[in-house]
Amino acid sequence: MKPITFLVNDTFRKKTEPLVVPQRLLLGPGPSNAHPRILEALQNTLVGHLDPVFIEIMNEVQDLLRYTWQTSNLLTVPVSGTGSAAMEATLANAVEPGDKVLIGVNGYFGNRLVDMAGRYGADVETLRKPWGQVFGLEELDAALKKHQPAILALVHAETSTGACQPMEGVGELCRKYNCLLLLDTVTSLGGVPLFLDEWGVDLAYSGTQKCLSCPPGLAPFTMNERAIEKLNRRHGKVPNWYLDMSMVASYWGSERTYHHTAPISMNYALREALRLVAEEGLEARWTRHRKNAELFWEGIEALGLSCHVEEAYRLPSLTTVRVPKDVDAKSVSQRLLREYNIEMPGGLGELAGKVWRVGLMGYNSRPENVQTLLNALKNVL
Amino acid sequence: MKPITFLVNDTFRKKTEPLVVPQRLLLGPGPSNAHPRILEALQNTLVGHLDPVFIEIMNEVQDLLRYTWQTSNLLTVPVSGTGSAAMEATLANAVEPGDKVLIGVNGYFGNRLVDMAGRYGADVETLRKPWGQVFGLEELDAALKKHQPAILALVHAETSTGACQPMEGVGELCRKYNCLLLLDTVTSLGGVPLFLDEWGVDLAYSGTQKCLSCPPGLAPFTMNERAIEKLNRRHGKVPNWYLDMSMVASYWGSERTYHHTAPISMNYALREALRLVAEEGLEARWTRHRKNAELFWEGIEALGLSCHVEEAYRLPSLTTVRVPKDVDAKSVSQRLLREYNIEMPGGLGELAGKVWRVGLMGYNSRPENVQTLLNALKNVL
Repeated sequence: MKPITFLVNDTFRKKTEPLVVPQRLLLGPGPSNAHPRILEALQNTLVGHLDPVFIEIMNEVQDLLRYTWQTSNLLTVPVSGTGSAAMEATLANAVEPGDKVLIGVNGYFGNRLVDMAGRYGADVETLRKPWGQVFGLEELDAALKKHQPAILALVHAETSTGACQPMEGVGELCRKYNCLLLLDTVTSLGGVPLFLDEWGVDLAYSGTQKCLSCPPGLAPFTMNERAIEKLNRRHGKVPNWYLDMSMVASYWGSERTYHHTAPISMNYALREALRLVAEEGLEARWTRHRKNAELFWEGIEALGLSCHVEEAYRLPSLTTVRVPKDVDAKSVSQRLLREYNIEMPGGLGELAGKVWRVGLMGYNSRPENVQTLLNALKNVL
Repeated sequence: MKPITFLVNDTFRKKTEPLVVPQRLLLGPGPSNAHPRILEALQNTLVGHLDPVFIEIMNEVQDLLRYTWQTSNLLTVPVSGTGSAAMEATLANAVEPGDKVLIGVNGYFGNRLVDMAGRYGADVETLRKPWGQVFGLEELDAALKKHQPAILALVHAETSTGACQPMEGVGELCRKYNCLLLLDTVTSLGGVPLFLDEWGVDLAYSGTQKCLSCPPGLAPFTMNERAIEKLNRRHGKVPNWYLDMSMVASYWGSERTYHHTAPISMNYALREALRLVAEEGLEARWTRHRKNAELFWEGIEALGLSCHVEEAYRLPSLTTVRVPKDVDAKSVSQRLLREYNIEMPGGLGELAGKVWRVGLMGYNSRPENVQTLLNALKNVL
């Protein structure tokens, strides 16, 4: 046996204790708590990424994702990263340098789309609204007419503001102006009515750690035939190897060509998360999210607080609560975490210090959690 | 409550059974079986990605990664994807369009580096060797002299061939020619002697599902001051948002600026995997991998089979075994999987049909696994 050439340096060989994690109630913008059945699924022993058993799991995940998104898109897969990776996958595959991309910016994640699209050489135009408001069909029509973009990107559920963008009629507009419709559904998938195909959405992405109650680490992605056609027309390779859907699709499709090693355990978890959606049924699940959100909104008013978003456009999965004058948002969040083990962080960007963000998502969308939070808030305020 | 606009389509609401996974012994190129303590860590309830408890976990993961890689690089983090994502992160951050990048190609993953580097606008030059061989210092010197690249990329442990690239002296050459040294350590980290700082490696990446015995889903990444300097000198933004280390570093560094939601559970798992490395100690771990590999090599010879790679350059973590004439490689792999629950796939690319790839990695590097595989192989052949 060859001798080892250098002496091992033990500087970073830190002594650590076995992991002890506090039982937090995660009522912020995500991650939300994982359903116990999902944590159980994670305990399963690994199989290979080309094992027939895993291929069957992949097929089930794809079908159940199609159900949850209400799409029949063949290319519906979990990207091997977190939500932002799937966001980037939509742009990396759909944008060619010089393409005009119109982005609705009414929150933090609209700005993220702007940053990402620019990196792929898009000629970015923005349509801006104050954080917490949504876009109307007329202003979308006017902007599409003016800019004639190749892609319109909107955020269905703005995690930074709690606003839900109405989608009826937007797909028709995009067809009228011959552009693709790209939709962020990170905080709506599995908790808020979502009809990708009926709405004419061409590309969408999501996360697992919101209304699906699955740990973060995979990110649902889908594109339809119109979007694939644009991908196939590209002049060069997709300028991102890991997220190149022409290759990822060969692994998830019938060829099963090795691309990268899929996160096996996380796919077990996502499968269980989607099984829970299918068992409950979308209508029941959406209604549950709505009812618990309404319960929370009533409680907030009873405490003399108010919601930042007009009720008609309020997300059931994420509520922004206005911070009263003379209250320090951050210290309330810190006390909730320290004294009550409840996570309820503040706003981002324009809304930093002005709102708290309350997520009632998936497994966490339950009346007892609403009551626990309202009681804790009452004590702390 | 607003009525739901469309009827829910139940086409893809597939009935599925609770997950049942067979107990495979994963002795292929990865994933390898997870250590039971690592699967246990995955059961922990989630905390937020900015929770003080998680920040402490992040610090521990970073330190233990530094130990395992033998580096003091400040920017040492797990990328939120699988090994290929961290591979792409090295190139996305280090390559500017027009940079000359010299890549040693003696296997499948060298070719992957070529594909990726091209997507980032590199002017790629290759130094090629038959699959299974390694590069000598003289030929590296000559190639560096000829091409004067900005980056030299090598694969330390070629998972497709089982060859281990000797690294002594390569860092000095790269300094002589003023280029960065980028190293693939996917199948060596935690199983094969690795001294990043002593070797003068500037950028490196790895996977969790090989010698760390952790499920796939995170990918260790590190870059030193020389590489960061090049990143800071860039003219434009890194053309990949998700893997932009100037932003990822702000989340993992002292600022804790939100970038993307880290895969919480997978970080629990990686922490436990790295604790196991620190407990065992690198020297003992490397010796264990070597001893079990030697046991396997002896057994292979006793069966009348031979290894593809010369012993001096053979990886302890992955062995390529030559397929005898008149034997169908694939049907042997299939029988091992079906009849013995053992995964031992065949070669890739140039070595497809010519070798099997046997991984004895991390938790799986044990004499009883060597014996189980040899017995099964004997019966099947």
